[in-house]
Amino acid sequence: MKIALAQLNYHIANFESNTKKIIDVIKNCKRDGCDLVVFSEMNVCGYPALDFLEFDDFISRCLDSVQHIAEHCVGIAAIVGGPSRNPILDGKNLFNSAFFVADGEVQHTVHKALLPTYDVFDEYRYFEPAKEFKCFDYKGFKLAITVCEDLWNLEDDPLYTYCPMDELTKEQPHLMINIAASPFNYMHAETRQQILRKNVTKYGVPLIYVNQVGANTDLIFDGGSLVMDSSGKNILKTQYFEEDIKYIVCEKNEASISLQPTHPQSEIALNVFNTEAVQIERIHSSLILGIRDYFAKMGFSKAVFGMSGGIDSALVYYLSVMALGKENILPVMMPSQFSSDGSVSDSQMMINRLGTKSHIIPIKEIFEHYEKTLQPIFNNAPFNVAEENIQARIRGTLLMAISNKQGYILLNTSNKSELAVGYGTLYGDMCGGLAVLGDLYKTKIYELAKYINRNEEIIPNNIIYKAPSAELRPNQKDSDSLPEYDVLDAVLMQYIENRKSIQEIIAMGFDEALVSRILRMVNNNEYKRYQFAPVLRVSPHAFGLGRRMPLVAKYLG
Amino acid sequence: MKIALAQLNYHIANFESNTKKIIDVIKNCKRDGCDLVVFSEMNVCGYPALDFLEFDDFISRCLDSVQHIAEHCVGIAAIVGGPSRNPILDGKNLFNSAFFVADGEVQHTVHKALLPTYDVFDEYRYFEPAKEFKCFDYKGFKLAITVCEDLWNLEDDPLYTYCPMDELTKEQPHLMINIAASPFNYMHAETRQQILRKNVTKYGVPLIYVNQVGANTDLIFDGGSLVMDSSGKNILKTQYFEEDIKYIVCEKNEASISLQPTHPQSEIALNVFNTEAVQIERIHSSLILGIRDYFAKMGFSKAVFGMSGGIDSALVYYLSVMALGKENILPVMMPSQFSSDGSVSDSQMMINRLGTKSHIIPIKEIFEHYEKTLQPIFNNAPFNVAEENIQARIRGTLLMAISNKQGYILLNTSNKSELAVGYGTLYGDMCGGLAVLGDLYKTKIYELAKYINRNEEIIPNNIIYKAPSAELRPNQKDSDSLPEYDVLDAVLMQYIENRKSIQEIIAMGFDEALVSRILRMVNNNEYKRYQFAPVLRVSPHAFGLGRRMPLVAKYLG
Repeated sequence: MKIALAQLNYHIANFESNTKKIIDVIKNCKRDGCDLVVFSEMNVCGYPALDFLEFDDFISRCLDSVQHIAEHCVGIAAIVGGPSRNPILDGKNLFNSAFFVADGEVQHTVHKALLPTYDVFDEYRYFEPAKEFKCFDYKGFKLAITVCEDLWNLEDDPLYTYCPMDELTKEQPHLMINIAASPFNYMHAETRQQILRKNVTKYGVPLIYVNQVGANTDLIFDGGSLVMDSSGKNILKTQYFEEDIKYIVCEKNEASISLQPTHPQSEIALNVFNTEAVQIERIHSSLILGIRDYFAKMGFSKAVFGMSGGIDSALVYYLSVMALGKENILPVMMPSQFSSDGSVSDSQMMINRLGTKSHIIPIKEIFEHYEKTLQPIFNNAPFNVAEENIQARIRGTLLMAISNKQGYILLNTSNKSELAVGYGTLYGDMCGGLAVLGDLYKTKIYELAKYINRNEEIIPNNIIYKAPSAELRPNQKDSDSLPEYDVLDAVLMQYIENRKSIQEIIAMGFDEALVSRILRMVNNNEYKRYQFAPVLRVSPHAFGLGRRMPLVAKYLG
Repeated sequence: MKIALAQLNYHIANFESNTKKIIDVIKNCKRDGCDLVVFSEMNVCGYPALDFLEFDDFISRCLDSVQHIAEHCVGIAAIVGGPSRNPILDGKNLFNSAFFVADGEVQHTVHKALLPTYDVFDEYRYFEPAKEFKCFDYKGFKLAITVCEDLWNLEDDPLYTYCPMDELTKEQPHLMINIAASPFNYMHAETRQQILRKNVTKYGVPLIYVNQVGANTDLIFDGGSLVMDSSGKNILKTQYFEEDIKYIVCEKNEASISLQPTHPQSEIALNVFNTEAVQIERIHSSLILGIRDYFAKMGFSKAVFGMSGGIDSALVYYLSVMALGKENILPVMMPSQFSSDGSVSDSQMMINRLGTKSHIIPIKEIFEHYEKTLQPIFNNAPFNVAEENIQARIRGTLLMAISNKQGYILLNTSNKSELAVGYGTLYGDMCGGLAVLGDLYKTKIYELAKYINRNEEIIPNNIIYKAPSAELRPNQKDSDSLPEYDVLDAVLMQYIENRKSIQEIIAMGFDEALVSRILRMVNNNEYKRYQFAPVLRVSPHAFGLGRRMPLVAKYLG
């Protein structure tokens, strides 16, 4: 039996383009002699469809797509993913299902049992968990089909009270097939492979795993679909961060299943090495894909952003040029009376290297008119954060004006460290349609800059090595208001990613007053993040829908 | 047995104040001879605590509070709500629990079985559902204790596959006690009472129901705790929208339980009449409570907002004065060259009536400097939405400057109709810490204005009867860009509240092109709402965490 792993990039709710793409692949695979094409979870509508799933009309369109795809499955079978209706009145009205289609119709439907409802996942919001499990036969193979999380319950402290494969294994399947929509984070490729290997070695059955690829707003799906033999060895692997289709030939021998890829791969391509170097390389690829898909799927092509001479905007500049092409990128320099000399000249150096257009718009005059206008109300009160924020908001207004007038989308350049402690101006530098770096701590920002400069100086060293500053008052430095970034980021990581208590963090050797101050800043700035742009998620705990904190609260305050 | 229903207002994660409040009530009830005080769901930490529940430290603090409260329960018992740890390794690590405390310690712990995971609720994100159910005895009464949603599964299409009371009823309890955190919407008081009555009549057991009161950011809890006898008749009811403690004396007779409130109430106070007049009255109370609690719990006292001469800002003006007192309210008029004569004069008339301070800040000069600054980039391109938005963003920047400089919190004045179709400027009139009217369609805004003016003209009739306009270009009217509000709101209600498909809405008699245009506007503007302030929720489907839509998607596009 020849099986295709079809790792594709879907557009949520775009039934026309998704269905066409699926059917085209089925046609090609049929031409190549495949017996079965395995697609990813919820592929007819794209993942995550979120509350579209609450529209009965949306479910009907999903089921129509499955039907339409089934009509093209003659002489070939396919496994596609989508919602299905729960015929039982009790419980939620939907299942998250895998449809096995062949001979022009749906032959079997398998429902997901383990419904991830944590971090960015909300599946129990929509779906009833499966309680019954059954393998079925195709071309002499007994297949155990599961959906994504169904294989993710072999940890020491499992999230669910049962394991679908424990039931399916009783029927002695020849092959496990898992269809997934498992989003990227810089740890996840390795974790995922370990979990899959645990399943393979526990049940002693080879696995075909197909993941979604492509970005849907904040979530970036990295692909990395694979075939593992029953010993846990990788036999086949698809590309990360791009669409890829690969074939495997499965044969039943007396005691075992032989698995033979049609295009053999090298050992290196087959395995995951989760070094820091690989992490940064993946972050780099994921951000470019994240920008590219946001624009492509929103129907936009051009990006604008404020270029300050700092490292964050330099990175956004480089990444957006890689994602959208230099002809589509517009950096705008908006110096004020507090800007350093390097602010414009360092930016200009990089702009010359990358060769895009750019604008310089000084904001001093507008700022003075705000001051003059507010004078009767402010009554000569001393310059403070109010005036700092006015400058940031003038820049936001200018960038949005260019966006509105000329059809550019504003990219946000905030990093995770400053978002965490609220070191940014709401409606100012926190403007933008997509936050490219919002899940990268400042220390990771530097690592990424060095990665980008690994072969040649793309980002000027001046930009990398200057002391970070918002330049909103004379001689301002980030370190006036914030701890040094290596300390700040280490504390933030413990609190945000690792959910540690203030006592535990202090016990790690950090200064008590400092930890207390940082945690208070994080909690007191939830209100800013609540109104922030979607953040490209690259870590296990990003700001956004995956982190839901009360605004009106008093914890560690 | 004398039982107290303790309907209190909690501050999320403020263990000190919550615990003190609970213990004070227990002391008072003990003094009054009560045997048992029933509090609401999750009351030790406040509801919803959201991802604070993922911090082990937070759980420890909750359990410490329960322990501390228990120490004060000598000669009296209490039922308090909070998270508890699941001792079984499999499944989620927490339960949502009711603790029965007496004799200085926790005597029984009951876990919630039905975990709402829809709309604004995310309970399966944190909790394992209970699978075992047991009544227990206190002072000769067999009590069936459940937590909120546990009673909400008697609908025709139930959300859950089992019913805790079906199990508990086997032990023939004398009393049902349900502790709840059930947020307000203008339909909900009636719905809630119907569901409770269904339980009482199905199981033939009297019910004591205690709900949380008070607002936590977007969610407003209305209270309305009650006692129902086994025939479904209301015997006792607490106040809506305020803290209230009431006592009931329960006695066991041969065949039945007699229930006697210590302070008898009138028939009118006991029942819910869900007329439109009552709905508007409740919306009015809920918004005032919502504003008041947001400020009180955030530790702020003063509110600023832009006053345009339109009905929305007039309502925000009145409601904020009611919530925070006239000395704390600052309306700011910011006329431009496109403002009508009435813009300032109508506002001024209302300001004179309510007697607050105010400012007038013309924006013409700043606007001209933006135009001049952008001239080299815009190259005499015709005036369009870019220039309209600049004006709105100047106003946002001025209001935020006053907020930053003088410690005011900016209230947002957008209504649900304009938020739905994206008729507002992101970072402009969409600025603000709390959206007071964001869950009220424009047609409801008019109803509320008329309710406020029911006895005297508080909001000038000029403001109520003028044609709505954003006044961002000469002679602009909302009706230039939008359908008439009665049609728009009717279509929006079908799509947003009722989840109807485009075909179904057209079949109701609306124009096909119009429906298509409205639904497309709703979908295409998710990105704006994603960055919007928390909205005081008064309807069954508000924008915010209760509505999760993909941004990058193509549905009905």
